[in-house]
Amino acid sequence: MPAVSFETAPDRYHHWKLTFDGPVATLSMDVQEDEGLSQDYKLKLNSYDLGVDLELADALQRIRFEHPEVHAVVITSLKERVFCAGANIFMLRGSTHAWKVNFCKFTNETRLAIEDASAHSGIKFLAALNGICAGGGYELALACDEIFLVDDGNSAVSLPETPLLGVLPGTGGLTRVVDKRKVRRDLADVFGTVAEGVKGRRAVEWGLVDQVYPTSQFRQRVKERAAMLAAQSDRPSEGPGITLGPLDPQLSDDRVAYRHVTIDFDRPKRVATLTVSGPEGGQPATPEQIVTAGDAYWPLRAFRELDDALLRLRLNEPLIGTVVIKTLGDQAAMLDVDDVLLSNQQHWLVREIVSFMKRTLKRLDLTSRSFFALVEPGSCFAGTLFELALAADRSYMLDSPDEDNSIALSRMNFGPLRMSNGLTRLQTRFLGNPDHVTTLVPSDASRRFDAEEAARLGLVSFAPDELDWDDEVRLAIEGRAALSPDALTGMEANLRFAGPETMETKIFGRLTAWQNWIFIRPNAVGEKGALTTYGSQSRPEFDFNRT
Amino acid sequence: MPAVSFETAPDRYHHWKLTFDGPVATLSMDVQEDEGLSQDYKLKLNSYDLGVDLELADALQRIRFEHPEVHAVVITSLKERVFCAGANIFMLRGSTHAWKVNFCKFTNETRLAIEDASAHSGIKFLAALNGICAGGGYELALACDEIFLVDDGNSAVSLPETPLLGVLPGTGGLTRVVDKRKVRRDLADVFGTVAEGVKGRRAVEWGLVDQVYPTSQFRQRVKERAAMLAAQSDRPSEGPGITLGPLDPQLSDDRVAYRHVTIDFDRPKRVATLTVSGPEGGQPATPEQIVTAGDAYWPLRAFRELDDALLRLRLNEPLIGTVVIKTLGDQAAMLDVDDVLLSNQQHWLVREIVSFMKRTLKRLDLTSRSFFALVEPGSCFAGTLFELALAADRSYMLDSPDEDNSIALSRMNFGPLRMSNGLTRLQTRFLGNPDHVTTLVPSDASRRFDAEEAARLGLVSFAPDELDWDDEVRLAIEGRAALSPDALTGMEANLRFAGPETMETKIFGRLTAWQNWIFIRPNAVGEKGALTTYGSQSRPEFDFNRT
Repeated sequence: MPAVSFETAPDRYHHWKLTFDGPVATLSMDVQEDEGLSQDYKLKLNSYDLGVDLELADALQRIRFEHPEVHAVVITSLKERVFCAGANIFMLRGSTHAWKVNFCKFTNETRLAIEDASAHSGIKFLAALNGICAGGGYELALACDEIFLVDDGNSAVSLPETPLLGVLPGTGGLTRVVDKRKVRRDLADVFGTVAEGVKGRRAVEWGLVDQVYPTSQFRQRVKERAAMLAAQSDRPSEGPGITLGPLDPQLSDDRVAYRHVTIDFDRPKRVATLTVSGPEGGQPATPEQIVTAGDAYWPLRAFRELDDALLRLRLNEPLIGTVVIKTLGDQAAMLDVDDVLLSNQQHWLVREIVSFMKRTLKRLDLTSRSFFALVEPGSCFAGTLFELALAADRSYMLDSPDEDNSIALSRMNFGPLRMSNGLTRLQTRFLGNPDHVTTLVPSDASRRFDAEEAARLGLVSFAPDELDWDDEVRLAIEGRAALSPDALTGMEANLRFAGPETMETKIFGRLTAWQNWIFIRPNAVGEKGALTTYGSQSRPEFDFNRT
Repeated sequence: MPAVSFETAPDRYHHWKLTFDGPVATLSMDVQEDEGLSQDYKLKLNSYDLGVDLELADALQRIRFEHPEVHAVVITSLKERVFCAGANIFMLRGSTHAWKVNFCKFTNETRLAIEDASAHSGIKFLAALNGICAGGGYELALACDEIFLVDDGNSAVSLPETPLLGVLPGTGGLTRVVDKRKVRRDLADVFGTVAEGVKGRRAVEWGLVDQVYPTSQFRQRVKERAAMLAAQSDRPSEGPGITLGPLDPQLSDDRVAYRHVTIDFDRPKRVATLTVSGPEGGQPATPEQIVTAGDAYWPLRAFRELDDALLRLRLNEPLIGTVVIKTLGDQAAMLDVDDVLLSNQQHWLVREIVSFMKRTLKRLDLTSRSFFALVEPGSCFAGTLFELALAADRSYMLDSPDEDNSIALSRMNFGPLRMSNGLTRLQTRFLGNPDHVTTLVPSDASRRFDAEEAARLGLVSFAPDELDWDDEVRLAIEGRAALSPDALTGMEANLRFAGPETMETKIFGRLTAWQNWIFIRPNAVGEKGALTTYGSQSRPEFDFNRT
């Protein structure tokens, strides 16, 4: 796969049409089979590759930020009798293992963003399945609040991955069937092994869809229900929204430089340095000023850049194993911005910005690279930006007698930026000592800690002094780079998410881990595996040993 | 590996010494390096293979059943300055993928049985680490209630799997460090990458052990603490216990026949039929009579047989993909036994028997084979035995107009036999409708359902009539046998455990799935992988692409 750019905009979409009708937006899938990211496959029957999903993710972002008047979204298809055939099998077959895994991770995040918008943004989603809906297509529908299926004697929902391809419905499908829609496990077992899927009344009885309607009524029923879902929203009744302009990073061979974020690659060492600069200069103080600032407002701009940087790292820089996180800037300015965000969370745009920061930090939690945060004089690990240190696998803070070096907590660290396990990063960090978290809550707007205190309170991992700093940090980074990347991926996926599991962590833990296993098993991807032989003359041949 | 027999007894142990001192038992590891299950490796430094763990599992069972006067158990080693070096690396290297996975699953179950005894049986466990404690050795310690480590300047706890072997501490290690002992994730990250481990005060400060004592004090402190732990127990102050005699199954090429359980193998079809016969004849009515019946008492005998059958299936019959579950017998007798068990749960032996039934049913939930229950006239799917149908991936019940065919629920289905997710199988099955579970509670001792009612209430998957029965069942079994065994393993692992996750399900879901992935990655098991090259002249060579 070539290096991927993650930015797009509606006027450049190939595969989706985004239309508006008052409070209801419609996202219509109309995949152009020759417009895949690679020419090695054709995206037939509304099957998708990463490029299709990047447009969907972009459209969801634009609905949230550019169209506050949208209260419900209908997801449907413009293809006759086809909703979506799922992830393109020929794309999967031709992809490396790492690409498959990262493709699935991104599509999972997009579907969770739909559920996040429903839970936190007042936007409800209705999947209007106007035709066959298979595999990843049904998994997209499962992410919506409700699913309507046309009852035309032919259209069915299905998860044919296991019977046809020897893999799992790994984009949340298995988890959502039993954990979100709470389909009985024995019926889910049948559903997951029947390639042709389930249609009509049985699909409703089993809980796989909410309603089925004959073709003659389908559009009207979808329209009526979308209007009802829209009526539940607490979003503004009209715009304007803000416009998400291009990020236009400067790209060179060993650097991606955005306005507030840079990422520098030391490829021989397989290490990148990710630097985030805090807010500078006058910042908006009211929601109205934030709307005026629009996509230039630091929290939105900086986190859009961070999000883009993380995606580039995942998909385009597979050999970078360790990421050193640094921050720069004025802690007081950062804490002021936090204060403005915290004081205006009821405003639709502030809510969107904070929710987006939360999702971006989750993206970091789920990025399978080792992150080490370095807290040095001049850094800006305060409030929201301190979450970067909390998200890191370790943090090192220079204990300097000469220079001021501190971190700071704000109330942003105590609720708005929760991890996918439903806890704050501080709660997860101090899982055994919730009282300790309580004692850390700032009595005022914020609270600062020097290196000695930060280390004593467990807010950073280590606080070497100037004599030890260079060696300790260097050895930590070099030592990390020498370890098995697979073992590190597995270790980090287990250590980062202590505490409760949610549907979200189940998808990324249990389901994804099993899918990754299956994605390298010969029964799927070997010469005679089911994914390899699908669509060819030959039938799969399995090694029937059970594991 | 040769076919394994899972039965043993203290007089046949090679690797453990089980001694008693009033209410405290001591389990001392003293692995004989030439007594491994295979001669291909030597079990040096108290490293273990499945044979060592089978003895440990047996000893734990005997403490529970044969020694009710034991209130605390010290787990230590007879080797000088070595507690345990963990799973034997040369054994792992020489094992098939399926063997590695099933070995880890069994050792995980043994460690969870320790925690179950602590939580439910009044037996507390103290790990007395008299020397180095690495990998699986530390994972065994993590399963204990408390961990004491000798402070001799040398003895450390460690999880060297990632830095030395390129795999995970997959026997619960990563999960228990952050979720049970609640070690801070950044410290756990360091701990998990430092081959030499952590010792002395730092091990206490990080929460990796509870206490360290100098060699001169160690034994005395362990003894004192074990006595204090024993004092907390609600177990009887004296025996007698009952004796767990051998099961003596009759083995032939295509059958294992116990007294109440048989398993028949149709190897060409890769299907086994597991038949459990219910209780017959006069059954004990009081705890005293149960003690007298001892290991001949049906619930204990039948579930010990079932447990043994499941283990044989897992380790010795990897090509059997589907297991048809049948029962035979008198439902009224089964419900009477349930009634006696339910009425006497405060008695130590009844408590042990019910807890063992619970653990055996969990073993079934965690067995990576497809289970289909067939409910036919003459079957005994009542109360406890109906859990077998609930544990199955699907159930088929013959709707016969001529012959009586029913299932029955007892209060055993509503609490004592919880799955590892903390819910009953009925709660898991009807996750979306808890009220429905409430309506199913028998108002009297039990409640019977015919096929039509059972299907309507969702207690069985399907209720074909006699015209359809043969074809429907045959097609279901044949269809299952044709699917990818890996995809089925992954699918079942996701569908069986809807609802909340617990530490136990995290270990078997998240951690195990990641470990299984790593266990087939070239970076671990390839020609130049870390597991392959460990202990040889050559260093591992990694493909550093991150996944």
